[in-house]
Order: sequence, then structure tokens, then C-alpha cells
Amino acid sequence: MASKNNVMKDITALCKRRGFIFRSSEIYGGIASTYDCGPLGVELKRNVKELWWRDIVQLRPDIEGIDSAILMHPKVWIASGHVDEFVDPLVECRQCHHRFKADELKNLEQCPDCGTKDCFTEPKLFHLMFQTYMGPVQSEDSIAYLRPETAQGIYVNFENVRTPARQKVPFGIAQIGKAFRNEITPGNFTFRTREFEQMEMQYFVYPDNAEKWYKYWKSQRKEWYMSLGFKMENLHFHAHEKLAHYARAATDIEYDFPFGRSELEGIHNRGDFDLSRHQEFSGKSFEYFDQERDERYIPFIIETSGGVDRCILALLVDAYEVEPERDNPDKMRVVLKLHPKIAPVKVGIFPLVKRDGMPEIARKIESDLRRHFMVFYDDGGSIGRRYRRQDEAGTPFCITVDGQTLEDDTVTIRERDTMVQVRTKIGDIPDVVRRYTVDWERNKGLPGGK
Amino acid sequence: MASKNNVMKDITALCKRRGFIFRSSEIYGGIASTYDCGPLGVELKRNVKELWWRDIVQLRPDIEGIDSAILMHPKVWIASGHVDEFVDPLVECRQCHHRFKADELKNLEQCPDCGTKDCFTEPKLFHLMFQTYMGPVQSEDSIAYLRPETAQGIYVNFENVRTPARQKVPFGIAQIGKAFRNEITPGNFTFRTREFEQMEMQYFVYPDNAEKWYKYWKSQRKEWYMSLGFKMENLHFHAHEKLAHYARAATDIEYDFPFGRSELEGIHNRGDFDLSRHQEFSGKSFEYFDQERDERYIPFIIETSGGVDRCILALLVDAYEVEPERDNPDKMRVVLKLHPKIAPVKVGIFPLVKRDGMPEIARKIESDLRRHFMVFYDDGGSIGRRYRRQDEAGTPFCITVDGQTLEDDTVTIRERDTMVQVRTKIGDIPDVVRRYTVDWERNKGLPGGK
Repeated sequence: MASKNNVMKDITALCKRRGFIFRSSEIYGGIASTYDCGPLGVELKRNVKELWWRDIVQLRPDIEGIDSAILMHPKVWIASGHVDEFVDPLVECRQCHHRFKADELKNLEQCPDCGTKDCFTEPKLFHLMFQTYMGPVQSEDSIAYLRPETAQGIYVNFENVRTPARQKVPFGIAQIGKAFRNEITPGNFTFRTREFEQMEMQYFVYPDNAEKWYKYWKSQRKEWYMSLGFKMENLHFHAHEKLAHYARAATDIEYDFPFGRSELEGIHNRGDFDLSRHQEFSGKSFEYFDQERDERYIPFIIETSGGVDRCILALLVDAYEVEPERDNPDKMRVVLKLHPKIAPVKVGIFPLVKRDGMPEIARKIESDLRRHFMVFYDDGGSIGRRYRRQDEAGTPFCITVDGQTLEDDTVTIRERDTMVQVRTKIGDIPDVVRRYTVDWERNKGLPGGK
Repeated sequence: MASKNNVMKDITALCKRRGFIFRSSEIYGGIASTYDCGPLGVELKRNVKELWWRDIVQLRPDIEGIDSAILMHPKVWIASGHVDEFVDPLVECRQCHHRFKADELKNLEQCPDCGTKDCFTEPKLFHLMFQTYMGPVQSEDSIAYLRPETAQGIYVNFENVRTPARQKVPFGIAQIGKAFRNEITPGNFTFRTREFEQMEMQYFVYPDNAEKWYKYWKSQRKEWYMSLGFKMENLHFHAHEKLAHYARAATDIEYDFPFGRSELEGIHNRGDFDLSRHQEFSGKSFEYFDQERDERYIPFIIETSGGVDRCILALLVDAYEVEPERDNPDKMRVVLKLHPKIAPVKVGIFPLVKRDGMPEIARKIESDLRRHFMVFYDDGGSIGRRYRRQDEAGTPFCITVDGQTLEDDTVTIRERDTMVQVRTKIGDIPDVVRRYTVDWERNKGLPGGK
């Protein structure tokens, strides 16, 4: 078996090879821990975000979506506590000027980079927010930050959303968007990056009900990850004992990555910290008048804060398998057993040979299926090689147009996990894909398959 | 009739009132020309982006999607020409230190802000890219820019996309994403903002075919805007005579905004400028070997570069009408006649009264319909007021659960543009909405309506 380190290397290579994820600005040597999504990566991400939005916003009468700007008023970050709290103490080597997190060097006497002894400066606070200037003048007054989280865009808009949406407590506001943190030690491929995407939902509740809703969202969110097809044994709750300045209770949903058990999403009881702070710093009231209770209060917030890129990475790790080929057990294949509902491409379409009218029929099938979902046409190399490429892409189905197609309008349809093939009428393909998607379980195969 | 200036004011107020768009960080007084999308705005934007992605990526075998990072290697912006060319000459008033675009002050002798005469400094070049620092050390080496356009993320990934996607010239790469420009004079609501979203497609072609593809994409893109339901007379082509440093030909698709005819999207023949520059600055070859032609060349690029926020603003302007109510022509109503396929909410659901089991039936209909599309439940105030709210939201249908519903499972379904109501079986609602969406024309109403 491959070691766990090698698994991350293999997945990183697969991501580049198949066009899931690669380093940003690679032709210029890349830019530290920043990544781009290729054609498969962007579809995988779109599918996951779309499912989140559907489950959190579309299907629920009690949650509204928003999309707030990355650039916010700097006072937001004073009120949120980020300007004061979102810092790391760094020490600098006086010899080579490299900087290190103070707590990581506690027992070191020499610089890990240049080897100089007793070279460290006193720790200095380093801000994890990216800073820039807005407008034509660079001054204290024009400082702007790239938001380090999407949550504050929700809090400050509490009334701007609640009023037109006619919501009453308890209700939530959700958004998906980019955030930026100038991490000192990013790493583990896309797990910790300086630019990342969050899917966050903030649920506003009556203070006495906070504990109930905290439990509710913990279980809802774990179920949601399960619904993406994750192996149950790889998902875990981790309750925090040491809490951030804003939190009254915090649980992470963690995944068993090859580099260790790590956070996918945090569920937090933030109490009235956020709304109280924004009330204090903006001078605007965040008190809510609860008609049913005939009572005024600042709602408590239960937050579910997930990382899109982490979820994608965990899905790739979870789906990645190296296993013997069905009809040729001496040979190994690499396959991504992604849930078909998140698979970037649903159907690969191959003409058996590039003649006898097969490419024309295959192109016709391709163009019909494109109205239903993402497909991939491939006429390059042997059918075996084409299957391998789609296995690596996580494509649940490959159909082949062959001699018999010309006679009876059927194709072979080959299921990814079991590699079993059956013949199907061309017109039935969308239904086969849809029914299979609803019922999918890893390695269960097609109903009616051999 | 309202003046054109008042129309922009009215639309801005409607956007706030109904939760489409409002100022970012409003409780802190806002942050210059930065906006957030509320529940309706985010759905309108999602629908437009989804249609673009479907038409440009999903339905076309020749275009691949990507999602590249906002933070890129700084050399990208040297190669692209932005570091040298993306500047505005500014002059500063020595008295009040305000800065102005030099070309806007040409004939002015005194400061428009403080009135001082002969107060201006010599023009100084001002960079329109937002700058920040990446990593723990702030130095020349750690400068990073917020991308001023998404296009470069496509160019530098030419091979990273082409190879796994097995594409051959001609083909395209598309992406939707945020870009940032430190504009000196942003304005006109969301038309020119410092943070904005682009939907860009770069099409790589054989140089001799560039003119043909340029024409093709011009007509394709205009058709696409038409398909969103724009009034034909408000869309225009505008061919540029003065060209940017990268362009060989440029046409804008413009919209007649109340503040003047302005760009929605640019279609450009960029020649081999971009790939040649990245080849020169990265040392990596961008030559493409064309097997069919047995020839090596650097592909030319035809670009279609649209602004998501501008498109949304134009759609709101185009759909905005103030007209007499059907049964009460002395009274005016405000209505957004958005194409139902982009309308944020498809169906408003009202119980006639809050008793006799009507709310329960209405809630049941709501929860069934949520599986199909976005809906809005409203039991507040008279039916007339609830209609008015949904008219302003652009909701194509409102259904009311009334006494007869309890007897025969029918509801009234009221069409937005004509205000005509018909009775429909509850189970038929999704089909009615779908058929109407396919055939929609402004003011045509429901088939079978009176």
C-alpha cells in the first residue's frame, strides 16, 4: 500500500494531470499556496456549492442568501475583533531576516533556516489580514482589508436582509464567497491557502434556544457531508475546549486526511458577541423585537462555517482508489469514486472507431446529452485508455457507440465503480443517469448490471 | 414621466427596499462604491451567471471552464502590460490634497473642491491595481496585486487546460470571477465599482481566422443578451476606433442606461499579444502545433468580456416599469418585468386569510414548490399589498389559497405583467411556470388567461 504521504502526492499529480487543480501562475514558478481550478475542478466546486445552496437556501423557508463584498468598511474589522485579535506573534532571525511563528520556535536556540544561534528578535504581532488602500490617496483613512471571513458581511446586513425578506427569529442568512488570510504557514495542498472560499450560514435565535439550535445544526451539517457520499468512518466531531474570543461553544466537523484529522467546517455558538459589537461600534441598534414573546433582545448566533476548498480536497481524497482492473486483475487502475451528483462530468462518450458513421452518432448523442449535464467526448486512443481517463476524472458513466449502435440505436454503458457494462437504448441514457444518481452507493453498480 | 435621473434614484431605492442591492457596510456609513447583494440580488445574479455558464460551457464542446485565483504572480501583470499601462495621471491640489484625473481638469484653473487657484501639482501616474503584500515580510519581493481582470488567469493556464481537456484550436476557456480596480471616479450605482464580477471567455484561433471568429462572437454575444429578455432597442454595438494596447479590433455591446449609453461587454480581437507576452516573460513556449495544418503558431485570441454587475443593473433598468393597475387605473404600480428565467423568485404563495386551514395548505404548496424553484411565502397584509411586493421583486407568479382551494384543490394564479388571474390545479403549478418561462414575452401573459 502507498504511504499516506504518497497518497497526497499522487492526488496532487492526478489533479494536475486531469485538470482539477494546479498551482496559480505556474508558468512563473507559482505563487505560494495559491491554486487554480481547471475544467474538472471548477465543475466539482460548482456542484458542491450548488448542493449547499439548494439545501441551505432554496429548500428552507427560514434561510436567506446574500452575496456581500470582499472589501468592507475598516470599522467592521475593529468591531469584529479581527484588528486586535487576528494576529500571530512572529520572531525574526537577525541574520537571514526570515520570520517564524513564535510558538513554533519555543525550544529552538538556532534559526531553522540559516543556523545562526541566539538570533531571534522579540516577538512582534503580525496581522493575518491582507491590507490595501482604496481610492487615490494612500493614508490611514484609506486602509481597506480583504475580508478574512464572509460572516461579517452577514452580521452587518442583519436588518437589510430581515426586513425585505420578512423573516422572524429564528432565521438564517447564508453566503458563499472568497476570503483571504495572510497565513504564515499555509500548506497541505489546498487545505490551508491564503485565498479560499467559504460557505457560511449564520442562524439568529432567541438566546435561551441557542443550545438547542447548536445541536440541531451540528447534526444537520454532519448529515449534509454524509449526503455528499463521504465514507462515514472518515467524518468526526471535535468539540473545542479552548474557545475563540467570540465563541461560547464550538465543534468542528473533521475529516481523516492523509496528513491527519483536520477541520472541514466549524459550528459555533457565537452568543450575542457579533451583533452587540456591531451595535456598539456603529451606534445602530441590533435589538430585535419578538412579537410572539413581546420581548426585545439581541439574537444569539449559531454559525456553520465550511471551507469549499477543504470540502473539495476531502472529497478527492475520499473518492481516490487504486484497485485491480475487473477483467485484468494484474493491472491497477486509478479511479475517483465520487458521488455522481458531484462528479464534474456525468458521461464520457466514445465512438469505438473513427469511421463507419460512429463519430457522427457519438457527436449527436453528445450534443443531446449536453442539454442535461456535463459530458466529455473522447475519440483518442484505445477504449481502455479512454476508460482510464474517465475513471481518473470520476465520470460515473462511459458510453460507447459501436457496430451494433448502427443497427439498433443501443450503446454500451459502463459503470465506473464496478466496470460493468450493459447495453442501453440511446434515448434512455438521461434516465439511467438520473436514477443511478439518486440511488448511488459506492461499488453497488448499475441496477440490472452483471 | 419621471426624469432619467429620477429613474436611477427610484431603482436604487427599490433595490434597497426589496433586498436586491444595498451599500456595503451601510451601518458604518458605507464604503465608497461597494455594494452587497441581498436575497433577491444574489438569486438574480446566480440565475444570470448560471445561464452564461450553461450557454458558454455546458452546451459547447469547444469551451472549457476554469476558476483561477484572484492573487497571481506579480510577473503576470508585468507581462500583461498592466504594471506599465494600467495607470491614470493624477494631479493633487496643494491646498486640500484632493486628487483628480489630469484629463478631467484640463481647462480648470482652480480646485473644484476647495477653490484654490493654480494649486495643482504636476500629473503623477497612479496605479489602478490594488496592491498588497503576501507572506510575513513586506518588501518589493512580496508585492501582490488583486487581479484587475480575470482574463490573465485564462492565458497563463492555456496548456494546463488544453492538455487534459484534449482541446484543439479553435477552442475557448471561460471563467466567472471577481476583479478589482482602484477606480478614481466610480459611480452610477453598481455600474462602475472597485470590486466587480466578470464573465469572460477567451477563444483561441488560427490567426488567419481571427476576423471570422471576431464577427461570430459579436453576433453570439448580442443574441445572448437578447435571450435574457432585454428590449432590442436598448442594445447597441459600438466599434472602437481608439484601441487599447492589446487590441486589434474592439466592439462593445452597450445598453441605454438612464445615465447614457454604456458598455455591458467588450468583444476584442487581441491578436497574439497575450500569449506572446507570456511566452516572452515566462520563457515557456505558447506555440501550438496544429496537426491538421502541420503548422506551428501562437493562437490569436478573441475575447468576450462581460460585467456581471453591469448586466444585472441593465436588467433591472430594462425591466423597471411604473404603470396603472389593471382594475384600478388611477393607481400606479411599480413592477419589474424580468424574464421569468432570471427572476429571483418564481412564485409568491399567499393564504387569503390566516385561518380555516389556508396557511397550512399554502405552506404545503410552498414546501413542494421549493424542490423546483425559489418561492416566497407571504401572509402579511392585504392580497393587494402582497401582489405589489412581488411585482417589485419581479416575481412572475403569485398564487393565492382561498375558500375554493379547500373544496377543489385549485388556487388562483396571477401573472405579473398582465395582472390576469386564472384558477389552476395545485399539481399543475410547476408545469404552468415552466411552459410560461419558455414562451415568455413581455406583457403577453399566461396562455389561456383573460
